[in-house]
Amino acid sequence: MTHIGSLEAGPRGTIADVAGVTVGHCTLAQGAVQTGVTVIRPHDGDVYRDKVPAAACVINGFGKSVGLVQVEELGVLETPVALTNTFGVGTIVNAQIRAAIAANPRIGREDPSVNPLVFECNDGYLNDMQALAIHEAHYMSALDACSVDFERGAVGAGRGMSCFELKGGIGSASRVVRIDEHAYTTGALVLANFGRLPQLTIAGDALGKTLLKALQETNVKPEQGSIIMLIATDAPLDARQLRRLAMRSAAGLARTGSVYGHGSGDIALAFTTAYTVAHDAGFITVPPLVSDARLDPLFQAAADSIEQAILDALFSAETVTGRDGHRRISLKDALRTRP
Amino acid sequence: MTHIGSLEAGPRGTIADVAGVTVGHCTLAQGAVQTGVTVIRPHDGDVYRDKVPAAACVINGFGKSVGLVQVEELGVLETPVALTNTFGVGTIVNAQIRAAIAANPRIGREDPSVNPLVFECNDGYLNDMQALAIHEAHYMSALDACSVDFERGAVGAGRGMSCFELKGGIGSASRVVRIDEHAYTTGALVLANFGRLPQLTIAGDALGKTLLKALQETNVKPEQGSIIMLIATDAPLDARQLRRLAMRSAAGLARTGSVYGHGSGDIALAFTTAYTVAHDAGFITVPPLVSDARLDPLFQAAADSIEQAILDALFSAETVTGRDGHRRISLKDALRTRP
Amino acid sequence: MTHIGSLEAGPRGTIADVAGVTVGHCTLAQGAVQTGVTVIRPHDGDVYRDKVPAAACVINGFGKSVGLVQVEELGVLETPVALTNTFGVGTIVNAQIRAAIAANPRIGREDPSVNPLVFECNDGYLNDMQALAIHEAHYMSALDACSVDFERGAVGAGRGMSCFELKGGIGSASRVVRIDEHAYTTGALVLANFGRLPQLTIAGDALGKTLLKALQETNVKPEQGSIIMLIATDAPLDARQLRRLAMRSAAGLARTGSVYGHGSGDIALAFTTAYTVAHDAGFITVPPLVSDARLDPLFQAAADSIEQAILDALFSAETVTGRDGHRRISLKDALRTRP
Amino acid sequence: MTHIGSLEAGPRGTIADVAGVTVGHCTLAQGAVQTGVTVIRPHDGDVYRDKVPAAACVINGFGKSVGLVQVEELGVLETPVALTNTFGVGTIVNAQIRAAIAANPRIGREDPSVNPLVFECNDGYLNDMQALAIHEAHYMSALDACSVDFERGAVGAGRGMSCFELKGGIGSASRVVRIDEHAYTTGALVLANFGRLPQLTIAGDALGKTLLKALQETNVKPEQGSIIMLIATDAPLDARQLRRLAMRSAAGLARTGSVYGHGSGDIALAFTTAYTVAHDAGFITVPPLVSDARLDPLFQAAADSIEQAILDALFSAETVTGRDGHRRISLKDALRTRP
Repeated sequence: MTHIGSLEAGPRGTIADVAGVTVGHCTLAQGAVQTGVTVIRPHDGDVYRDKVPAAACVINGFGKSVGLVQVEELGVLETPVALTNTFGVGTIVNAQIRAAIAANPRIGREDPSVNPLVFECNDGYLNDMQALAIHEAHYMSALDACSVDFERGAVGAGRGMSCFELKGGIGSASRVVRIDEHAYTTGALVLANFGRLPQLTIAGDALGKTLLKALQETNVKPEQGSIIMLIATDAPLDARQLRRLAMRSAAGLARTGSVYGHGSGDIALAFTTAYTVAHDAGFITVPPLVSDARLDPLFQAAADSIEQAILDALFSAETVTGRDGHRRISLKDALRTRP
Repeated sequence: MTHIGSLEAGPRGTIADVAGVTVGHCTLAQGAVQTGVTVIRPHDGDVYRDKVPAAACVINGFGKSVGLVQVEELGVLETPVALTNTFGVGTIVNAQIRAAIAANPRIGREDPSVNPLVFECNDGYLNDMQALAIHEAHYMSALDACSVDFERGAVGAGRGMSCFELKGGIGSASRVVRIDEHAYTTGALVLANFGRLPQLTIAGDALGKTLLKALQETNVKPEQGSIIMLIATDAPLDARQLRRLAMRSAAGLARTGSVYGHGSGDIALAFTTAYTVAHDAGFITVPPLVSDARLDPLFQAAADSIEQAILDALFSAETVTGRDGHRRISLKDALRTRP
Repeated sequence: MTHIGSLEAGPRGTIADVAGVTVGHCTLAQGAVQTGVTVIRPHDGDVYRDKVPAAACVINGFGKSVGLVQVEELGVLETPVALTNTFGVGTIVNAQIRAAIAANPRIGREDPSVNPLVFECNDGYLNDMQALAIHEAHYMSALDACSVDFERGAVGAGRGMSCFELKGGIGSASRVVRIDEHAYTTGALVLANFGRLPQLTIAGDALGKTLLKALQETNVKPEQGSIIMLIATDAPLDARQLRRLAMRSAAGLARTGSVYGHGSGDIALAFTTAYTVAHDAGFITVPPLVSDARLDPLFQAAADSIEQAILDALFSAETVTGRDGHRRISLKDALRTRP
Repeated sequence: MTHIGSLEAGPRGTIADVAGVTVGHCTLAQGAVQTGVTVIRPHDGDVYRDKVPAAACVINGFGKSVGLVQVEELGVLETPVALTNTFGVGTIVNAQIRAAIAANPRIGREDPSVNPLVFECNDGYLNDMQALAIHEAHYMSALDACSVDFERGAVGAGRGMSCFELKGGIGSASRVVRIDEHAYTTGALVLANFGRLPQLTIAGDALGKTLLKALQETNVKPEQGSIIMLIATDAPLDARQLRRLAMRSAAGLARTGSVYGHGSGDIALAFTTAYTVAHDAGFITVPPLVSDARLDPLFQAAADSIEQAILDALFSAETVTGRDGHRRISLKDALRTRP
C-alpha cells in the first residue's frame, strides 16, 4: 500500500500510536448478519470523570450519529466513541448509558446525565439491517476488547461496510510531525462505507475507472454510504482548534475520489489526549496550546492520515458475502482480476 | 392564565390548531417511575413517504436529542417527533426505526435508512431514570393516541419534568396572524423542564421571587433542566425560513425568565404543514413562500406561542411525587400557599 | 431607571467596569447628518500584537458587520471594535487597516493582514445615510477619545439610532458575580436601534402599548433596525465559552420586547480581558478557565447587563431631529407626554 | 491542460456557460502595484431588485470577505460579486453601496440598505498592499467590462495572486450534467492564491515535488494565501441546497493538494440563475427544485469544475514581477525549466 504524503507514520501505523488510545471490535458474521461494533477509547480511565477535549465537523449530514449537539456546545467527549450500523445506534446509546451508570452511579441522579456518542454507517447492502442484530452486550464486548493491537478491514462496525463498491470497513493510520522541539502524533481511524467504483483514486491514480471494466457486475446501486473519520492527536489543542483539525478530514477524503455524495453521512471527530477536563472541575487547567499559526503540520497530518486510513480499510478488508447473496470483493481480489 | 401578546389564539389554543397536527401521550406514573413519551404527528399520513419541511435551532446544546444532523442537512422530517426522558432516547430511536420499517419494508434495503427524531429532557428529579422504564411499546402507544384533543401538564414525556422548580411538563398554545389576505396559524408545544424558581416571570411579573419565600424548601438543586420547543405552522416556508422561526423560540423562552442555563438543553424545531416532499420525488414542488420581509408576524406568533405554551405547562400540571419522596408542587398549588 | 435583576452593578455601571476597557465616540450632528463612530478598546495596548479572545453570535443576520468570519475561525479580535452606520462600514474598515499598518508596518508584507472588526446599525430614519458622511478621521477621533468615562445615548454611532421608534443609541451596564472566591465583572455596551413601540417592555412592564396612545404619530415605519451587543468580561473563558456568553444577549434583548425582527441585524460579540494571545506566540498560554458548569452566574450577568444597557440607551438619549424633519423623541420626553 | 473527470465542459469552458453570467476585470499593473478587481454579475439586470438565491460555505475562515452574514440569513445575493485584494475590501464595499444607490435611490431611505458582497485574497507578495491602490472607480470599471468573454490568469483581482508559490489568479471552468431530461450547466470561477509548491497536484500527479527541485529559490515564504471559489448553476436549487453545492468545492480544492492551510481564507459561494427573488415580493415563487437525492451529478460537477478552474488559473497566468523585485513564475514557465 502506497505511503501517502511525506510525513512519517508512527511505529504501529494506527491511531494507537497516539498514547493511550485503544480500539476494540465485536464482529457479527453469520449468514445475512454481517455487522458489528467498534469502540475507540481515548484513554484507559473513566471518560465520564476525565472528559476528553473534542470537536466534530459535519461534512455531509445525511447521517444518524448521536451525541454531536453536546460535543459542539461543551467541547468534550464523556464516553468512549462507538461505531456501528445505522440501526444499531439506539441500542448502543442504551449500552453506553448503562455502562456509564455502572461506573458512576450518580448519573441520572445527582449528576444529571451522560452524553452517548455513537457514529454509524449503513451496511445494508451486505447486512440484514432489519434484523436489528446489534445488542447491548456487543458494545461491552468491543469495549472489553480495546487494545493497542487491533484488526482492520471487515471487522467490528466495518464488517458489513462497502467502499467504492468494494469491501470497506475499518482502516487506520498515523503521522508524526515536529513543531519546534515537540513531536506530535496524529492518528486516524475510519469506518469507510462510501463511494462509487468509478471515483476510486489511490494516491492520485484513478484506479476505479480501470477496475470498473473488470468488475462491472458490482456497479449496481447508487451510493448510500457514509464515512466516519476519527482523528486523535497528542498535540495540545482546544475544541475550536480540534474542529479545525476535524475539517481537514474533508481533504483526505476528497483525495480518494469522494465528492461527499448526497446520501453519504460524512462526519469527522477530532480529540486530543494532551489533557482532560475533570467532571467536577471548578476551573479547567489547559496546557499551553499550539498556536493556530503553527497548525499546518497537524492539518497535513490529519488529511494524510485520513487518506491513508481509507486505503488501509480497502487493503485490509477481505471479500465478504452477506444477505441475499450480496457480495463485496476486496480491493486485493479486485486487483487480481484486473487484466 | 394571562394571554400573552396581542395576537389571537386559534380555536383550541394548542398546536393542533395547525391543521393536520395531532399529539399523543403514553404516561408512566407508578411510584419512582414518573415519565413517559409524547408523539407529535405533523400530518396523518406516512411521514417517511411525505416528508415535512423542518429546521432546528440549538439555543443551548447541553442535550442528547437525536436526528438533528440530518434535519439540518436535508431540511425535512421523516418520522413523527418523539419526546421522552434523557435515558429513553435510544429505545425510542429503535421504536421509530421499527415503525418505519413496518410501514415501508424497503427501508434498510432498497431505501437506505430512516432518520429517527427524538428529543429529550432530564426528569431525574422525580423519575428514577436509572430504571430505564421507557420501552418501545410506549412509543407505539403514544403514536396510536395521537389526536387533536390532548392533555397537557404532567402527562406523556412531561410526567416527571420540573420547571422553575415547580411541576413542569407539556404545554401548548397557538396564534393566528394575517399576511395579506392569508390567515396563518402557528402552534407551539413545549416539554418544559428548565429554570430556577427565582427566575420565574409570568407575563412580565417576577412571580418567582415572591413564591420563593413561601416555597424555599424546594430550592435545593442547581438547574439540570432543558426545554424542547416545537413550532408548527401552516404558512409556506422553506427550511431556511423555518430555522429563522425556530430561533424566535429563544425570545419566548427568555421572557419567562430563562437565560438558557448551562445545563439546559434548549432546542427548538419548526416545521410547516403547507407542503410535503415526496420520498421519491425527482423534483420538489414548492408553493409560493411567504417572503422574508413579511415574516415578522410569524416571528411574533412563534415567540408569543412559546411563552404561552410554557405558562400552559405550568398552569396545566398537577403536583407530582416521585422517586425518593421528591415532590414538585404545581404552580396552582404554589400560588395557593402564597401569603 | 429600574435595576434589572438581583446581581449588583460595578462602580461605574458601564462596560468600563471591566478593567482595561475604554470607549470613545465621534459624533456628527449637523442638519441631516446625524451619525457617528464609537470605538471600544478591549485593552490599552496594541490589539494586533496582543489579541483578545472573542466570539460572536448572530441572532438575526440581516446585517453588514465585517470581520466575523475570522473571529469565528480563530477566536480572537485583533483590532478595536468599531460601531457606525450601515454605509460607514467600508470607510471604517479602511481606517482600521491604516491604523494597524501605522502601528505595525509589517502588516501586508511579512505579516499577511489584519482583520478589521466593524459593526453597524441603520440610522437612515434620522441620518442622511446617502451622504456617506463617515470619514476615516472619525475613526481615529473616536479611538483617541477612548476613556473609562464616556457618554451614552445619542452619541457616537448612536447619534442617529432609533429604538422602539423612540430615540435609541449607545447604552452600557455592568454586573459583578462571584464564582468561588473570585469576583468577575461583566460589562455590556449596546448600539440599540431596534424594535417597534408596541413591543417596548421595561422591567416586565409593557410600557410601549401605553406610550403608543400618546405617541401614535411616530409609529409610521416598519422596523428596519438592528442591535449590536458587546459583552466584556474579566472571567477567564475560551472562545467556545465566549460564544455561549454572547448567545445570552438574546435573552436580555427579548426581555425588552424584541422578537429579533426580520429586518434587524441582531449580533452579539463577547470578549475576555483575562488574557491575550501574542501575535507571534508559538504556544498559547491560557489561565485556568472557569468550568462550563460554573457559567450560570456569568450567563445571568450577560443577559441582565444587556437588558440594562438597552434601557440605559433609551434613558440616556435626548430627542433628536434629523433629515427631512424626522424626529425621534427620547423616552424621557415620551414619558412626560403620557397622560 | 488535462480535462478533470468524465463530465463534459460547456462550450466556453467557463462560468459564462451558465446563461446570464458575465465577468469583468479591472487590472492594475504598474511597478509595485500588481492588483485589481474582478466582478461577476449573476444576471444582466439589477441584482438588488431581482435577488439571486445563494449560499456560502466557509472552509477555512482566515479571511476578510464581506457580506456573508446576510447571505446566510436570507439566502440571496443583492449585488454583483466582487473580488479584490485584502486591503481593497472597504473601498469596494463603498463602491457597491454607491452603485446600488445610483440605481435605486430609495436605498438608505425607504429601502433600508443593501448588502455589499466582496471577497478577497492577499496579494501582498507581489503587490504593495500598503499602497491601498484600489479605488471605487476600479469597481465600476470591472462592472462595465462584464462580458461572457473574459480573460483568466494574472488579470483583475488575480493580477497579484500566487498559487502553490507559482503565479496564480483567475481561473474558470464548467461542466454539464443531465438529470432526467434536463441538462444543467455548472460553472466555477476561482481567485486562486493558496498552496505551497510541494503540495501541487495536477490531475493526481504530484507535480509540485518535481518542480520544487528546479525552482527551490521561490520556496521562501509560509503560506499566507486564500482561495475564493464561486459556483454558478442553472439548476433550480434553494439556498440550503446551494450551501451543499458550495461545500463540494472543498473536494475540488483538496485534489489540487490543499489541506486548507491555517492562513488561507478558503471560502465558497454558490448561486443559481434558475430564478430570482423580487425585492418587493410578497411571496417567493420557486420553480420545482431538483430533489436532494438527484444532486450527486451536480456535486460532481461542482468539485470537478473547481479543480479544473484552479488548473485553469495556473495554466492561464503569466509570470509577474511586482514589489521589491518579488516574482512569481507561471506554471508554463516552470514546466519549461523542469530538467
